[in-house]
Amino acid sequence: MIRACLAATSAILGLTSAIACAPARRPPSTETGATPTVTTQAGDGDLRIAELRSCALDSGETIEGCRVAYRTFGKLDATRSNVVLFPTWFTGTTKTLAGIVPGELVDTKRFFLVLVDALGNGFSSGPSSSRAQPRLRFPKFTIHDMVESQRRLLREVLGVQRVHTVMGISMGGMQAYEWAVSHPDEVERIVPIVGTPQLTTQDLLLWNAELHLLEGSTAYAGGAYAEPRPKIPALQELHWLMLTTPAHRNAETSRDAFPAWSATIANDTAFDWNDWHRQLEAMLAHDVARGAGGDLAAAAGRVKAKGLVIVAEQAGW
Amino acid sequence: MIRACLAATSAILGLTSAIACAPARRPPSTETGATPTVTTQAGDGDLRIAELRSCALDSGETIEGCRVAYRTFGKLDATRSNVVLFPTWFTGTTKTLAGIVPGELVDTKRFFLVLVDALGNGFSSGPSSSRAQPRLRFPKFTIHDMVESQRRLLREVLGVQRVHTVMGISMGGMQAYEWAVSHPDEVERIVPIVGTPQLTTQDLLLWNAELHLLEGSTAYAGGAYAEPRPKIPALQELHWLMLTTPAHRNAETSRDAFPAWSATIANDTAFDWNDWHRQLEAMLAHDVARGAGGDLAAAAGRVKAKGLVIVAEQAGW
Repeated sequence: MIRACLAATSAILGLTSAIACAPARRPPSTETGATPTVTTQAGDGDLRIAELRSCALDSGETIEGCRVAYRTFGKLDATRSNVVLFPTWFTGTTKTLAGIVPGELVDTKRFFLVLVDALGNGFSSGPSSSRAQPRLRFPKFTIHDMVESQRRLLREVLGVQRVHTVMGISMGGMQAYEWAVSHPDEVERIVPIVGTPQLTTQDLLLWNAELHLLEGSTAYAGGAYAEPRPKIPALQELHWLMLTTPAHRNAETSRDAFPAWSATIANDTAFDWNDWHRQLEAMLAHDVARGAGGDLAAAAGRVKAKGLVIVAEQAGW
Repeated sequence: MIRACLAATSAILGLTSAIACAPARRPPSTETGATPTVTTQAGDGDLRIAELRSCALDSGETIEGCRVAYRTFGKLDATRSNVVLFPTWFTGTTKTLAGIVPGELVDTKRFFLVLVDALGNGFSSGPSSSRAQPRLRFPKFTIHDMVESQRRLLREVLGVQRVHTVMGISMGGMQAYEWAVSHPDEVERIVPIVGTPQLTTQDLLLWNAELHLLEGSTAYAGGAYAEPRPKIPALQELHWLMLTTPAHRNAETSRDAFPAWSATIANDTAFDWNDWHRQLEAMLAHDVARGAGGDLAAAAGRVKAKGLVIVAEQAGW
């Protein structure tokens, strides 16, 4: 499912929701131990998997059989200098991004666009896709860990050392900021859209509310729910409550239409709850200034990239 | 606890939060079968209980041993024409209202102010205060049922047939609208503050999220939780998320202060969860136009009261 799409389409991008809001599906059977795919010439938008073997994490733990899913569009130029990296938002997938980014947000005639699935989104390694570390045995990871996995994709699989632009929406914007601070010599530009370098108090309140809702949910069962996944209506309702402005919600969905719309939300189990859990934790730990004692100015001092920062005029987070 | 206080104090009333935001406590031992109190001369702000025996509800069910708690300030004039009725907001109590209304919002030298505890708030009849119908055996009630219980308090105990003004904040504003539509000849003025005559889609989404969170909560245990009441952090966090604007939250609580502030919220069990449940249902069913096929204009056509409607410039609900 696409969590930021309404906020993005209504407030930021001017795209129609019909384009953006298709629900995500489980990945095709990519869990077959496929050999690494060399894709430097590919730009067809197909789902590809980079096999990174193991990924060391900020926590000291390791993702075993670490994989990063991605899609490319356009052509890498001769100097490998036209890469635009676009990671997914919270609960987002490149399947959805493929419908709104190429040719719309990024000119794929000029740029080699790499859409990348963030860790824990059901396509890249995470609780729902790992055989070795399933469910909450999958270690906690950070936004920085997502960035490091993407950097290895670029260097080890695509042969790219430096990117023209990292851009993304919401949690994708967090990754863009993290890229600029962690690898200042490898990022020329960032375009974070409704992202943040450091969570506000309201952000912390929102993501803690979702985390504690999951943890306290009978259906979630501490992550040990049976398949098919149970419905957790309150989590979806909370998420949608904060996804758009009240004015947008009221304009989009009449009181009469509310029961049917609400049921659609309540029935949505497309995104795995343990993946949701681990991506929440990644956002909650996000702070590009954590290495500078929380000093954002010091962290900003490291950045060499130019930035185009896009924020929402109204947002609940 | 006072749920609307920050929204009200920051956006509407200009009061300081120090005045308004004291947490509610359980009522003193009023469950002793006290005889009806005649209070037409009283105006001391003490908690009083009107014994209404039984209250017939919209559902067809009955509240047994029905009681309405209230406090009065000022003096009823000779023509009994100076009554200002001020019911509580969602999860609110007259104990809290007593700190912000008399002399601040209402001139008690001129008016006979009646603060009244809405059904299901722990002081008036509700799941936590009923011996005959405890917990979820307490029947569902509506905003209209609250109004009818208050009308009986006025007529049967205070000897008042007509009120100068009904005013209230949030769910208190819903009651003010309901009064004006249900009893047009008995209400001269209404002052609903961040109230609504009919829930918006965003309102429905918020209150459904809280209701489903409770229903799906392991700690809530379908209403059969043991005492002392368990913590339900996610519910408090969700509630506070929507209580103020993001800008207010971020200004009031720094990132560094968040853990301590968040813990205070998470530990708050002052308001009974079954009371919370039943008051949520009352709000979810609220619609002053329900008797007019949802036609707000038709409902408004019944109203004879003058209205001063106060809304928030920014609100998440």
